[in-house]
Amino acid sequence: MSSYLRTLTRRFSTVKPQSNPFPPPNISALPWLGPTRKGVEKPRVVVLGTGWAACRLMKDIDTKIYDVVCVSPRNHMVFTPLLASTCVGTLEFRSIAEPIANIQPAISTSPGSYFFLAKCSSVDPASHTISCETELHGTTEKGARLDSQKFKVAYDKLVVASGAQATTFGIPGVEKHAIFLREVGHAQEIRRKLLLNLMLSDIPGISVEEKKRLLHCVVIGGGPTGVEFSGELSDFIIRDVRQRYSHVKDNIHVTLIEASEILSSFDVSLRQYATNHLTKSGVHLICGIVKDVHEKKIILNDGTEVPYGLLVWSTGVGPSPFIKSLPFPKSLGGRIGVDDWLRVPSEQDIFSIGDCSGFLESTGKSVLPALAQVAERQGKYLASQLNKIGRASGGHANSTADVNLGAPFVYKHLGSMATVGRYKALVDLRQNKNEKGLSIAGFVSWFIWRSAYLTRVVSWRNRFYVAINWATTLVFGRDISRI
Amino acid sequence: MSSYLRTLTRRFSTVKPQSNPFPPPNISALPWLGPTRKGVEKPRVVVLGTGWAACRLMKDIDTKIYDVVCVSPRNHMVFTPLLASTCVGTLEFRSIAEPIANIQPAISTSPGSYFFLAKCSSVDPASHTISCETELHGTTEKGARLDSQKFKVAYDKLVVASGAQATTFGIPGVEKHAIFLREVGHAQEIRRKLLLNLMLSDIPGISVEEKKRLLHCVVIGGGPTGVEFSGELSDFIIRDVRQRYSHVKDNIHVTLIEASEILSSFDVSLRQYATNHLTKSGVHLICGIVKDVHEKKIILNDGTEVPYGLLVWSTGVGPSPFIKSLPFPKSLGGRIGVDDWLRVPSEQDIFSIGDCSGFLESTGKSVLPALAQVAERQGKYLASQLNKIGRASGGHANSTADVNLGAPFVYKHLGSMATVGRYKALVDLRQNKNEKGLSIAGFVSWFIWRSAYLTRVVSWRNRFYVAINWATTLVFGRDISRI
Repeated sequence: MSSYLRTLTRRFSTVKPQSNPFPPPNISALPWLGPTRKGVEKPRVVVLGTGWAACRLMKDIDTKIYDVVCVSPRNHMVFTPLLASTCVGTLEFRSIAEPIANIQPAISTSPGSYFFLAKCSSVDPASHTISCETELHGTTEKGARLDSQKFKVAYDKLVVASGAQATTFGIPGVEKHAIFLREVGHAQEIRRKLLLNLMLSDIPGISVEEKKRLLHCVVIGGGPTGVEFSGELSDFIIRDVRQRYSHVKDNIHVTLIEASEILSSFDVSLRQYATNHLTKSGVHLICGIVKDVHEKKIILNDGTEVPYGLLVWSTGVGPSPFIKSLPFPKSLGGRIGVDDWLRVPSEQDIFSIGDCSGFLESTGKSVLPALAQVAERQGKYLASQLNKIGRASGGHANSTADVNLGAPFVYKHLGSMATVGRYKALVDLRQNKNEKGLSIAGFVSWFIWRSAYLTRVVSWRNRFYVAINWATTLVFGRDISRI
Repeated sequence: MSSYLRTLTRRFSTVKPQSNPFPPPNISALPWLGPTRKGVEKPRVVVLGTGWAACRLMKDIDTKIYDVVCVSPRNHMVFTPLLASTCVGTLEFRSIAEPIANIQPAISTSPGSYFFLAKCSSVDPASHTISCETELHGTTEKGARLDSQKFKVAYDKLVVASGAQATTFGIPGVEKHAIFLREVGHAQEIRRKLLLNLMLSDIPGISVEEKKRLLHCVVIGGGPTGVEFSGELSDFIIRDVRQRYSHVKDNIHVTLIEASEILSSFDVSLRQYATNHLTKSGVHLICGIVKDVHEKKIILNDGTEVPYGLLVWSTGVGPSPFIKSLPFPKSLGGRIGVDDWLRVPSEQDIFSIGDCSGFLESTGKSVLPALAQVAERQGKYLASQLNKIGRASGGHANSTADVNLGAPFVYKHLGSMATVGRYKALVDLRQNKNEKGLSIAGFVSWFIWRSAYLTRVVSWRNRFYVAINWATTLVFGRDISRI
């Protein structure tokens, strides 16, 4: 046994001077991943983000041409259209999360490719480097204290695809008291909170008023996410709570508050269908504007006080502080301005796609909506552009390759879908708000909704789990373990 | 719309004086669930805990005779033999957690039965009441600030089955730096930490020494849990890390530290098999005693320093502060002392089962090991005793029913099983350490291990998911999303 000990101790105490893959930088005291050497190393594409745009780009990029370095605070992509379903357990969290290492295996196996769990803090176009800081948000307190570490990465091509953030319109208390619905962590928080409130409302001595408050779920924002979440909640209440929490069944309610109209991008007949269906399912629809958010109640513009136990905030997205801080010209709405080929025209080798990017006014095109299908299409387009540039030996930084860029990026809307609960959904196949086209609502739409998303889920593993989750929810009901 | 608002506002602002199911108590200012009225209400069994003993009891108790009130800080039972498999994603967390509402549906549907997410703080045998406090551990900080609430519950029969807690032997730093492996929350923490360390070890500028520290997983305690977790970890490293994190594959190591011998309750040939198998799988076995636990290293008795990135502590269990605080005679080892019929003999209507209870020395029986099969058998026995007492009209408090208690509880050990990773397990069917009997190791044992546990999982839903998880792990590998 003592030889083990000796080996172990030796292994840790003697650090042989090895060849360091990260040599100290010349331009800064921070550790870094230095510039690639032309002719010796592959050019390096640095991708910021792991959303729809970034993941589609990384999936399609030719790793025989490029090394890929991904910088993101999460190591997985979230299949956002199904996120609302995970809050009440219709689907499980892991069924909609896809590790980057599955989407692009080269990132964790190819010697020059890396995934860094970090946030980019600044971009220096002159030296072709970015500054990063490790992201330890949500990290356990057990074990070694974790200090975040700063480092730099040199890029040949930089793709900014770090997405947007939930808007609060500067309303006081939103950040502190409301839960957004953009990440798996948010869905987990909603599920834990909902189950906690269900259990707390049963404690002896609780007043009827407090019980009703605890069990009042308020959703702000009548876009597809808010509507789908309200539908899932009412399903959960009708199917699972009434059956299994009979003590509280008459006290639990869902209210959806929207400033104008729900699902405003959908066809008017679909909007009407959704309104009727949600109302029939027990969701209270309120037209109102939130003025203030307190610990246990929100205040509307007209002074109405609405007590709540769970508050979910889903009123669209806007640019993040990082995007605002970047020294590039912006599009309308404060996104990174790009040209017809999704390049940041003022800089060499910088591109931007997804919710953080928008066409510059000079292109004459309008800023595209913050939708998964826009982001994915842009990722696909940019990957093929970068592959083309790389094949023409223009992959390295500042290579003035004479590449014909070809056709600019054009977005064609395929339609919108949203489920409203109880095996009903809306499918709107019009190409934009003002055109005519097919729009259907009901069970057939719901079937289309499920089938369409099932085929879009990234991996076979998750496709399988989504189908299994749907089947077990149907047969056994939703899981109410609060873990 | 405004009528909605009015209805909503009215609903919350006017609280009609309703009949309160929880009248204010006479003996205290706290809200409470008062005593049951003989002839009008069913007698009430109050169960503390949701482990193996408590859940088996609640499953078997006749809810036509009794109302059941369960008090526990978690609303689900954990299938503990498979907990180690969830730390690395062989199984998912929800596949081994079973909500109490599924185990005994009456608890959340029958009018006099309740589940309270709370901890019992004291027992008053004279007034037949317990004092409780809501348990908000692990609660989100979003939304209303949650103050824990105190309340009392009167019992007719009290079953103390709140389990034991991990022992630290008073070694400094264990509570602060090590992760135990007793709850789903612990397994989640281990999985997050392991994936975090894998990713941090790839950050530019990290030294080889620090990389090796981050990727050194140390397990303290060579009982079945420690051995199974080490086996799962080495499986994860061989199968998933080497394939998908090729940057770090040579730097990740597992060390298992045990003061005497691993799996000391198993047959000597099985112990030898386990030692060989673990060593071959790359687990370093060290015989040593931990003296001190620091933030990034542990110190053994002989002065050896062992740096670690993940530290899992699994050295057995001992009585919790609550059990120590109860004013009942204790068994050897500080558990609640019970007689041959699992009653606390000094008090009326109090019973104790599972890891928190032990035979009084006066019974002449030795204290049973802290095993799931002991706890479950005790739960089953006590449920049938209580049903018998209830049918003889002895259910209410202090009913001096003339019930023939029948045969005392006798424990017959069915054998022990443990998996050691890579499709190998040990099965020891001897009735105790000193007897002879069948003991086998290898693939057949592994097959028996899996089949046996699969049939023991509580619900069909989870049985299905455990099988599906095993199948997808085999086909697709383990999920490495850090959510």
